[in-house]
Amino acid sequence: MVCKRIIIQIMKIDINVDAGESFGRYVLGNDAEILKYVTSANVATGFHAGDPLVLEQIIINAKKHGVAIGAHTGLPDRQGFGRREIAITSEELRSDTLYQLGAVDAFLKVHGMKMQHVKPHGILYRMTSENEKYIDTFLDTIKEYNPELYILFPENSLGFKRGVEKGLKMASEALVDLSYDDDGNWVIEKIKQARTPQEVAERALMVAKEKKIPTMSGGEVALPNAITVCIHGDGPNAIEIAQTVKQTLIENGVELGNLSQIL
Amino acid sequence: MVCKRIIIQIMKIDINVDAGESFGRYVLGNDAEILKYVTSANVATGFHAGDPLVLEQIIINAKKHGVAIGAHTGLPDRQGFGRREIAITSEELRSDTLYQLGAVDAFLKVHGMKMQHVKPHGILYRMTSENEKYIDTFLDTIKEYNPELYILFPENSLGFKRGVEKGLKMASEALVDLSYDDDGNWVIEKIKQARTPQEVAERALMVAKEKKIPTMSGGEVALPNAITVCIHGDGPNAIEIAQTVKQTLIENGVELGNLSQIL
Amino acid sequence: MVCKRIIIQIMKIDINVDAGESFGRYVLGNDAEILKYVTSANVATGFHAGDPLVLEQIIINAKKHGVAIGAHTGLPDRQGFGRREIAITSEELRSDTLYQLGAVDAFLKVHGMKMQHVKPHGILYRMTSENEKYIDTFLDTIKEYNPELYILFPENSLGFKRGVEKGLKMASEALVDLSYDDDGNWVIEKIKQARTPQEVAERALMVAKEKKIPTMSGGEVALPNAITVCIHGDGPNAIEIAQTVKQTLIENGVELGNLSQIL
Amino acid sequence: MVCKRIIIQIMKIDINVDAGESFGRYVLGNDAEILKYVTSANVATGFHAGDPLVLEQIIINAKKHGVAIGAHTGLPDRQGFGRREIAITSEELRSDTLYQLGAVDAFLKVHGMKMQHVKPHGILYRMTSENEKYIDTFLDTIKEYNPELYILFPENSLGFKRGVEKGLKMASEALVDLSYDDDGNWVIEKIKQARTPQEVAERALMVAKEKKIPTMSGGEVALPNAITVCIHGDGPNAIEIAQTVKQTLIENGVELGNLSQIL
Repeated sequence: MVCKRIIIQIMKIDINVDAGESFGRYVLGNDAEILKYVTSANVATGFHAGDPLVLEQIIINAKKHGVAIGAHTGLPDRQGFGRREIAITSEELRSDTLYQLGAVDAFLKVHGMKMQHVKPHGILYRMTSENEKYIDTFLDTIKEYNPELYILFPENSLGFKRGVEKGLKMASEALVDLSYDDDGNWVIEKIKQARTPQEVAERALMVAKEKKIPTMSGGEVALPNAITVCIHGDGPNAIEIAQTVKQTLIENGVELGNLSQIL
Repeated sequence: MVCKRIIIQIMKIDINVDAGESFGRYVLGNDAEILKYVTSANVATGFHAGDPLVLEQIIINAKKHGVAIGAHTGLPDRQGFGRREIAITSEELRSDTLYQLGAVDAFLKVHGMKMQHVKPHGILYRMTSENEKYIDTFLDTIKEYNPELYILFPENSLGFKRGVEKGLKMASEALVDLSYDDDGNWVIEKIKQARTPQEVAERALMVAKEKKIPTMSGGEVALPNAITVCIHGDGPNAIEIAQTVKQTLIENGVELGNLSQIL
Repeated sequence: MVCKRIIIQIMKIDINVDAGESFGRYVLGNDAEILKYVTSANVATGFHAGDPLVLEQIIINAKKHGVAIGAHTGLPDRQGFGRREIAITSEELRSDTLYQLGAVDAFLKVHGMKMQHVKPHGILYRMTSENEKYIDTFLDTIKEYNPELYILFPENSLGFKRGVEKGLKMASEALVDLSYDDDGNWVIEKIKQARTPQEVAERALMVAKEKKIPTMSGGEVALPNAITVCIHGDGPNAIEIAQTVKQTLIENGVELGNLSQIL
Repeated sequence: MVCKRIIIQIMKIDINVDAGESFGRYVLGNDAEILKYVTSANVATGFHAGDPLVLEQIIINAKKHGVAIGAHTGLPDRQGFGRREIAITSEELRSDTLYQLGAVDAFLKVHGMKMQHVKPHGILYRMTSENEKYIDTFLDTIKEYNPELYILFPENSLGFKRGVEKGLKMASEALVDLSYDDDGNWVIEKIKQARTPQEVAERALMVAKEKKIPTMSGGEVALPNAITVCIHGDGPNAIEIAQTVKQTLIENGVELGNLSQIL
């Protein structure tokens, strides 16, 4: 019976995608379409991408499709799209994070929704999950603002462990369209490896069913707590990837649900 | 008895000041000092002035001094300090407003405070209280986000009347360091008239006790609902003005209190 | 002989396109491709669109294709893409314009090129060519900075006439993918009229050969000095339009050349 | 006679100051006043500080006082005042630098002036003079844009040596209001040491006459090529420091002049 229960848990997973990254005249990704294939959306907060108009639109769309919302907090750098490390102080990390969380919450409030999770974007994902200078500040800020928020981090990161110790709701995320080394760390590749929708879907299925992911060296690394797979919405074949991942998971008996539904 | 009640109401007033307008290395005004002399603070939200670090600091200081907080929402234009009209759409006004309100509320939440009021800054004050294109959108956005918020508007404005009709908590504000025409409209002077602390204090006292204010032509205009006087924190003698206004009001039997305390 | 000379002049025209409007991660238009079909490019200067990296790239590409460069100066408003009027002062118009011209000239200098023209972007095009508050300041600033620059304006505008009076090199521009009223003014349509590449090409041909353009009412308006036709690079079928315009003009005996070559 | 010639050289020095750092409503320093006491000004270019309006104003003022102008290039980060390291690429350093140099040159052109030097601001000063990732790119960009520009760097930096090798006009700068370690490197102090005008003036005099500066450990370090001393314009007693430095140098027989006059 215990065994049966475990098996059922393994078969549930969340699919999250970055969304709301358009900015004024600049359109990025196809938010209206990709939301059909995911269960959670990380919405840009206007620091590295997005703007207030885009933010409200993505929340309206997410509500329509029953997609849960998380804040995709970023560095204040539109030109660098939040991918250039900025030597902010930990105090700035705190206040920038609160500011962005509040901004998203305003739109959720008027649309009768609740924020499900937070996920730092781009280089901030790495800074907050790996750099001692920022880990505690980030986690403590979330705890102070809203301890019910799930925090999407790689489970092999120092930040993930620290979050668990602090009693926070850490959600282990597998970046199925990126690469991993043998230590289970995701790797920023010089030239991002092109993967077919089928490849990404198979990786997502392995995460969902076997809680592991292939590594660059040809091995595999365990992600025993993986509960959400991230796909990116800004690639040229993003919609096809999302469709294929969703369909493959369902056809193989994996139940999809957002974090609140499956945790 | 009715008369007595009215007299007591007349003798209470709120003093509000713009605060939190510093930005990174740039210091504007002396927030820590001026908060000693006011009952409400309009905190810049990071669009026309302020930044997340400044925002948290001003809220901490306001809490320490028992000063109520309002969001001083502005146009997205630091260079113009929110004083250059931008032809935003009404949809942009809505989403920009929600974004800023939420950002401020995040800091209030972690510091255990509630937002008391909202006041549009600079040219946005004029746009939202006088321009048909924006009035309803602004008021409806506040109503949808938080109908308990007081809205600081000049009581002779179209926006004030519209807000009353919509059942919103309109707070009539007298701009005691600015000038008025005979219709009761505040005037942006080419060269701002220099006023001594005593002059400003006398004008504030007239508002508090007689519910009227002198006009540029030498007459007076009635502000029967005036409940808060605004002083500006960025002039060279701002602290002295604030001190004098507070002292003059108290010495003349006017009770000071924030909007929630006196309305 | 005089007659012959006139006919030859009529048959020459410049095709200009907006370019370099991408910004960081945000790609807008296909600069590398569209430059094959035009003779002049208006490069975004980093105020309403573009950034320094994009700016250098577009200049390198333009040089490769023999395309002349103009500065596409704009309002400081990326979020509004320079399309929201901002009530800047005329002093700000002057200093913003100089700043942008200088920035573009730096890249032209290191790549051994000269700036050919200036064209204000978006709402600034209208402000500088139609609004008394800005016309003289804009023209005088160009004259002071570099009187050899062509200024692209609609020839029916007040700014065009004023520029001619000041002895500036005014270049009459026909916006062949937009609509005109019977007074020869271009019209911002609520819903932009979709035009096939053939329609746009025929309008360009009419401008080149007959110096007139159809109006919304079904008539025609004369543009006797038209010397350049503008096509926009950010529409979905921009490349096809550019190709068709170029091919149609050439097949009908119109010689293409940039402003310096044909004026 | 040779000796005499050397002594005369030793007795000449340039005083440079950061200027033009105001931004819109935000005033920083007292540019109009401090320009009376210096021979060169590093003007903010609108990336970390300054704006086009401020930029033209400072150039007008500098011209009036006979002060030579340099571009004070910075990182694109007003909030951090260019003091937070941003992991820009070397391509971005190149294009950001060209953009800023061009912008300043536009104003110099209309006011009939020439740019004398370039000095990277804040953390960019350190990045370009000490970090291999950026040194060559920075120097090569200056060489390509205008090899006549003096480059203000600390003479003990790798960037200074590299610049000399490349045949660039390196100007050794002593930061007389900051501290030095025994290797001759300037030190960013946790708490900036307060120095009286007299102390700063004595340090400037030692640089000018003895080509050395005291270190934090109590020793001295040689700066044999020092040709300019930097004082900062944004401290509370900046004007007094500038006055005292100038007066002290003159009273002790040091001739003041900008870089072109003394090199």
